[in-house]
Amino acid sequence: RVDGSRLWDSLMEMAQVGPGLRGGNNRQTLTDADKDGRDLFKRWCEEAGMTVGVDSMGNMFARLEGAEPDLDPVMMGSHLDTQPTGGKYDGVLGVLAGLEVVRSIRDQGITPRRPIVVVNWTNEEGTRFAPAMLSSGVFAGVHSQDWAYGREDAEGKTFGEELARIGYVGDEPVGTRKMHAMFELHIEQGPILEAEGKDIGVVTHGQGLNWLQVTLTGQEAHTGSTPMPMRRNAGLGAAKITDLVHEIAMSHQPDAVGAVGQCDYYPNSRNIVPGKVVFTIDFRSPSFETQADMEARLRAGAAKIAEDLDLQLEIEQVGHFDPVTFDEGCVSAVRKAAEKLGYSHRNIISGAGHDACWINKVAPTAMVMCPCVDGLSHNEDEDISREWATAGTDVLLHAVLETAEI
Amino acid sequence: RVDGSRLWDSLMEMAQVGPGLRGGNNRQTLTDADKDGRDLFKRWCEEAGMTVGVDSMGNMFARLEGAEPDLDPVMMGSHLDTQPTGGKYDGVLGVLAGLEVVRSIRDQGITPRRPIVVVNWTNEEGTRFAPAMLSSGVFAGVHSQDWAYGREDAEGKTFGEELARIGYVGDEPVGTRKMHAMFELHIEQGPILEAEGKDIGVVTHGQGLNWLQVTLTGQEAHTGSTPMPMRRNAGLGAAKITDLVHEIAMSHQPDAVGAVGQCDYYPNSRNIVPGKVVFTIDFRSPSFETQADMEARLRAGAAKIAEDLDLQLEIEQVGHFDPVTFDEGCVSAVRKAAEKLGYSHRNIISGAGHDACWINKVAPTAMVMCPCVDGLSHNEDEDISREWATAGTDVLLHAVLETAEI
Ligand SMILES: NC(=O)NCCC(=O)O
Ligand SMILES: NC(=O)NCCC(=O)O
Repeated sequence: RVDGSRLWDSLMEMAQVGPGLRGGNNRQTLTDADKDGRDLFKRWCEEAGMTVGVDSMGNMFARLEGAEPDLDPVMMGSHLDTQPTGGKYDGVLGVLAGLEVVRSIRDQGITPRRPIVVVNWTNEEGTRFAPAMLSSGVFAGVHSQDWAYGREDAEGKTFGEELARIGYVGDEPVGTRKMHAMFELHIEQGPILEAEGKDIGVVTHGQGLNWLQVTLTGQEAHTGSTPMPMRRNAGLGAAKITDLVHEIAMSHQPDAVGAVGQCDYYPNSRNIVPGKVVFTIDFRSPSFETQADMEARLRAGAAKIAEDLDLQLEIEQVGHFDPVTFDEGCVSAVRKAAEKLGYSHRNIISGAGHDACWINKVAPTAMVMCPCVDGLSHNEDEDISREWATAGTDVLLHAVLETAEI
Repeated sequence: RVDGSRLWDSLMEMAQVGPGLRGGNNRQTLTDADKDGRDLFKRWCEEAGMTVGVDSMGNMFARLEGAEPDLDPVMMGSHLDTQPTGGKYDGVLGVLAGLEVVRSIRDQGITPRRPIVVVNWTNEEGTRFAPAMLSSGVFAGVHSQDWAYGREDAEGKTFGEELARIGYVGDEPVGTRKMHAMFELHIEQGPILEAEGKDIGVVTHGQGLNWLQVTLTGQEAHTGSTPMPMRRNAGLGAAKITDLVHEIAMSHQPDAVGAVGQCDYYPNSRNIVPGKVVFTIDFRSPSFETQADMEARLRAGAAKIAEDLDLQLEIEQVGHFDPVTFDEGCVSAVRKAAEKLGYSHRNIISGAGHDACWINKVAPTAMVMCPCVDGLSHNEDEDISREWATAGTDVLLHAVLETAEI
């Protein structure tokens, strides 16, 4: 079993880096805080006897040598970056649990046949540079590195510039590192495990994601003196489409979700009819058909709304991944570990996207989930118990040890 | 008659100060650009033989002495501040037309019995510091000066600090300057005069205004992994209320307008269900009953929407004025001037709020309107013709001369 208090202490220490305003974290990718978090992780890994390599996307790989160094390693990990108003566990738990697994293995004096690698994937959140899971996506060959380098934040700074600025452009070409399998422990970010009192979620599938950025263009005009029939109100169009997004997702209950999370009015003045609104829709489902249906209905409905209100409509896909089926062997290693340790568990579908979803394309992959309080995440109030974190890390340890062949 | 090309040259020169990005202006109140615009106006007034006084709200009064200096003066003016993406004429025309009237009077060697004062009211637009028409409101005793000084912009700077910073806290206590009457020339900011081919709008009434700032609070949560029934989506509530605002205004056609011009999502991230949205409703009508009905229906409908979506609702009035009836004597001076000069004219209701609406509470007041292209305003493409500007200024000249008793 792992050392739950050592794990917890590391989580609390990492949470000091890039603190949020209300007890959570703001350690957005490629900021100074992200650099500080990376440096701390690197130091901890080296102290635990690992060698840290960095690839050209800034992905960090801390390697514990195996008895047979030529065998492909077993990886574990997640991400250290957070939302602007994020919690202390989303991503961070998966990385520091990997570190705790290695610390425990060394405490026990075990040397598995295969090397073990703890990984921190760059820019999982996608808030600063869309899309989410950017660097695991480049690793898996889904995006090109050039395209990723060119992604811009709200201030027009590029991913490539900012990665160089914090000194994390590694010399290892992205995607070249071999692996035998990968495991990611993550908080559920949903309410199911807590509600059912289960310690462990055995993640069999992941939802597909579809991010559509909508730009509606009408005409700025004086709100007081422009007669209603002459208006081309982009804000009204955005409101109607926001409502439609909800309606479409509700029609697919319980197998889909959808919402508008980001919305910007221009020029955003009390007495100006908005001339332009830019907003993003997030549609998800574990079913390919539902994803396609939601997009088709959204496009048709939005076109009708834009036509009725005399608005110009542009829809750009700014993030996408297909529904995922995780590797059977890895999934059963997770289930067996939970059983062996006596933790209650159930199969679960991941509602959120994770780096594991991309890595599953290039190596056998699975995920372990632990509950989180009220299913709350992407919120500074995100919370988990020490027992939940420990149970998840115990399961990670045993799944990894079995796969790395002790 | 006034000198139309001199007026036009001054308009074009003022438009160099605080230029916008697309040919209009960004000379928001109490910015450095506003200070530069004020300094230029002051210089021009002094060159035209006037004495410039400033009151404690930064309102500027340029006085041309009358034959009987003890008589209360006749005022004309408007505002030099603009929207962030504003036009070159909204407000500016009324101030520089006042200057042109004085220049013309001096060219003709006329000295009216009453002094004539050209005024620039501070912060008419209300974009940076709500509400609009702030300083004419303080002048008219509608707001207290302390309250006005405490108004904050989006960065938390106060009106009082910023007024001091640009050096325009005058030594004259606000509201003490006497006046016999006031006239304000303004572009229509609506489509009626142009559509009917009229040179002049004789403004008989002004619409009432009601700005309601709505704060909806739900709960930030992960968009992918939070089941639809567990969400408290403040963005969805804002969308439904935005739609309701439109529906309410449409039910009172053609005697009301309404829209949401400003809307901010928090934390505004693609994969976070918005936990808070703050937005402003602008409802207007020339009828007291309609204004009251719109607010009552909005409050009832918003409460229902908030309840259905489990959101907390707060509604704060951040701007308000009642429908206005301008002074009969001043209105007929405007109509007579248009007739005498042979300009086509019609009675009109002002759709926008103007400083004249507040001053009408403390002195006989009226407004002159000239057409603007496509009724477009609060937009950098706002446009008028030199002929329209000249006709409006001619009418202002004659209305003022009659009232100042030559
Ligand atoms: N786990 C997580 O929050 N990932 C970010 C991508 C997503 O929105 O699902
Ligand atoms: N004329 C004008 O645009 N005034 C600002 C206040 C309003 O929105 O009516």
